[in-house]
Amino acid sequence: MKISIFGKGNMGQAIGKNFGLAGNTVSYYDNQNHAETLADIVVMAVPYPALASLAKEYADQFAGKIVVDITNPLDFDTWDSLVVPADSSAAQELQQLLPNSTVLKAFNTTFAATLQSGKVGGTATTTVLVAGDDDAAKQAFKAALAGSPLNILDAGKLKRARELEATGFLQMTLAASKQIGWTGGFGVIK
Amino acid sequence: MKISIFGKGNMGQAIGKNFGLAGNTVSYYDNQNHAETLADIVVMAVPYPALASLAKEYADQFAGKIVVDITNPLDFDTWDSLVVPADSSAAQELQQLLPNSTVLKAFNTTFAATLQSGKVGGTATTTVLVAGDDDAAKQAFKAALAGSPLNILDAGKLKRARELEATGFLQMTLAASKQIGWTGGFGVIK
Repeated sequence: MKISIFGKGNMGQAIGKNFGLAGNTVSYYDNQNHAETLADIVVMAVPYPALASLAKEYADQFAGKIVVDITNPLDFDTWDSLVVPADSSAAQELQQLLPNSTVLKAFNTTFAATLQSGKVGGTATTTVLVAGDDDAAKQAFKAALAGSPLNILDAGKLKRARELEATGFLQMTLAASKQIGWTGGFGVIK
Repeated sequence: MKISIFGKGNMGQAIGKNFGLAGNTVSYYDNQNHAETLADIVVMAVPYPALASLAKEYADQFAGKIVVDITNPLDFDTWDSLVVPADSSAAQELQQLLPNSTVLKAFNTTFAATLQSGKVGGTATTTVLVAGDDDAAKQAFKAALAGSPLNILDAGKLKRARELEATGFLQMTLAASKQIGWTGGFGVIK
């Protein structure tokens, strides 16, 4: 199937690689390359502050689509808190901005290098945790990545994005303090 | 050194085993076995609802001690939220109840079986993430476990307990939904 990805940074490229390995056709968009139409699955591989403006700019094209939020909404000045309300998440905010779309949270607990290599720290299979309120959308997401090296687990309803973002934040602080590498992190081991 | 542990359930025993392997003397306390005096490091291996009453009962003995909170304060009726305020944590609540103690958060992101075996899923070294505002207390905690099979990483200030509890919660939901085993979980891989 077709996948649209906003953003071609480290995360966008690593995510696109996996969708490509699974046999999908990936198109990238950014400020210089605007999308006219979007695929059924759209990945927002952009920093958190860009979500609201993209949601506004592409409001019509997002209708009916699965929109995947990958952001970790850290306060990058302090590295000491998230900038979303404690009882919410970037993903839940995006769902409110896009009431006609199905928002999923995914890829925020996997560093770019682990998505590129398919391994966490060279050993554990990279596992993507996906949360969302629509089971069919989660199944479509999982099906689109079947054939990639990634393992996909269901993290529950979209409200679990709060815990996913907390986990992503914690993992980033461990890497920023050099206690783990950006090629490592939380491997999800069965 | 000496370690006091409240609670001798799966977690208390697994934690005590590691302190023992590192050469410490471990004493257990519970409702039937009250403590007269406490060691310099006290582990609260009890369910979250028991913390407040223990803090009250042993208020005098806790003064000047390092008190380790290991709880995951889930709503076990719904498995859909934590019972602490979104902008706080069980550990921060305990610190408020024990102003003359140094509270650390630890062991809440490691299932009992992974503390018993020293391995997550049989492969990754079990890593304990410890948060707290007192660096000396964290160093003492780490030193007490040196010689155990566990790896100890510094997760930052006590406010990071919020993210640790979110991570612990997320990990528990993955096990409860049988997507990972209670012998597995989030291995912290460098």
